[in-house]
Amino acid sequence: MKLSARNALKGKVESLHRGTVTTTLKVATGGGDLITSSITNEAADELALKVGDQVTAIIKSSDVIIGK
Amino acid sequence: MKLSARNALKGKVESLHRGTVTTTLKVATGGGDLITSSITNEAADELALKVGDQVTAIIKSSDVIIGK
Amino acid sequence: MKLSARNALKGKVESLHRGTVTTTLKVATGGGDLITSSITNEAADELALKVGDQVTAIIKSSDVIIGK
Amino acid sequence: MKLSARNALKGKVESLHRGTVTTTLKVATGGGDLITSSITNEAADELALKVGDQVTAIIKSSDVIIGK
Amino acid sequence: MKLSARNALKGKVESLHRGTVTTTLKVATGGGDLITSSITNEAADELALKVGDQVTAIIKSSDVIIGK
Amino acid sequence: MKLSARNALKGKVESLHRGTVTTTLKVATGGGDLITSSITNEAADELALKVGDQVTAIIKSSDVIIGK
Repeated sequence: MKLSARNALKGKVESLHRGTVTTTLKVATGGGDLITSSITNEAADELALKVGDQVTAIIKSSDVIIGK
Repeated sequence: MKLSARNALKGKVESLHRGTVTTTLKVATGGGDLITSSITNEAADELALKVGDQVTAIIKSSDVIIGK
Repeated sequence: MKLSARNALKGKVESLHRGTVTTTLKVATGGGDLITSSITNEAADELALKVGDQVTAIIKSSDVIIGK
Repeated sequence: MKLSARNALKGKVESLHRGTVTTTLKVATGGGDLITSSITNEAADELALKVGDQVTAIIKSSDVIIGK
Repeated sequence: MKLSARNALKGKVESLHRGTVTTTLKVATGGGDLITSSITNEAADELALKVGDQVTAIIKSSDVIIGK
Repeated sequence: MKLSARNALKGKVESLHRGTVTTTLKVATGGGDLITSSITNEAADELALKVGDQVTAIIKSSDVIIGK
């Protein structure tokens, strides 16, 4: 499934921290960046996420703020 | 100024495309990823953005969707 | 690819309006709702969107405001 | 009050799950879709939400990602 | 209609700039701040917005980034 | 660092409520409005936020919904 979101960065789950409501994960992208995502625990369970998984970090271009 | 957003990826402006309302730019991050951002033309002018500029791509962790 | 976003509504593209920068489309969901999405023209071209296409409208649960 | 957000889907609260910080609710829209929303507990209390309530799920068109 | 979004700032439309796709407006809040919003032209037309109108600027708490 | 987000409201932290996952804070802007923000606890710790701190509330113009 192709997505309209302009950013789809492939990477590997480096760490997973499960809170009471949301799970925060760090994804080491192929490019070498570390992207932090917070998703619902329901989503983390449904995707059966674990460290080492190959995932895609999806970000809309309008959600990227630029600082200079 | 430190920001609460969990992702602040440093990189270089690779391309800038100015539309009538928004400017779409691609940022090559230090890590080697290419991040697309769309901002208002007003913002692009205020930041005096041009290709080659060192910038930071700022993304909230809750704006990062995970696909697996 | 499964997504962490909690809402993935399948439907059919009812209308497509291309602006200079963004394309606004209406998706009639299987459930009978009409969902409006605005995406970049680049995305619309890449997905080769046209009226009648089967698509999925993806929405994070944190992007749904409740009114009562 | 009319809103600039392009999606305002009327429906009924099907389920409410209160976490420590956020409340996740499922809204069965008139159209027959099930929309998941996560809001702060403060908001859920202020709106005195309960199963069976008639509510409106409000979503900006720019927050709807399209998959094909 | 009460909303789950935590910020609902009442104010007056100070300026309206209509682009080809989106309308950017500045709202002078009762508190004295100037808030910039960009909405679709369709929304601006439907709300029949004009300078001097009393409006409410609605912002989810999760969309407010903190800098220090 | 200048940001592309159109709203950068300076103010003082009036209250801080730490949950298990997110911290909700109220910022009294110079203009006299009270803006609510919810950020991750990780961010709150990194910014060492406390009541009385001078901060900036940063909001993208596309995240401001207008009601009339």
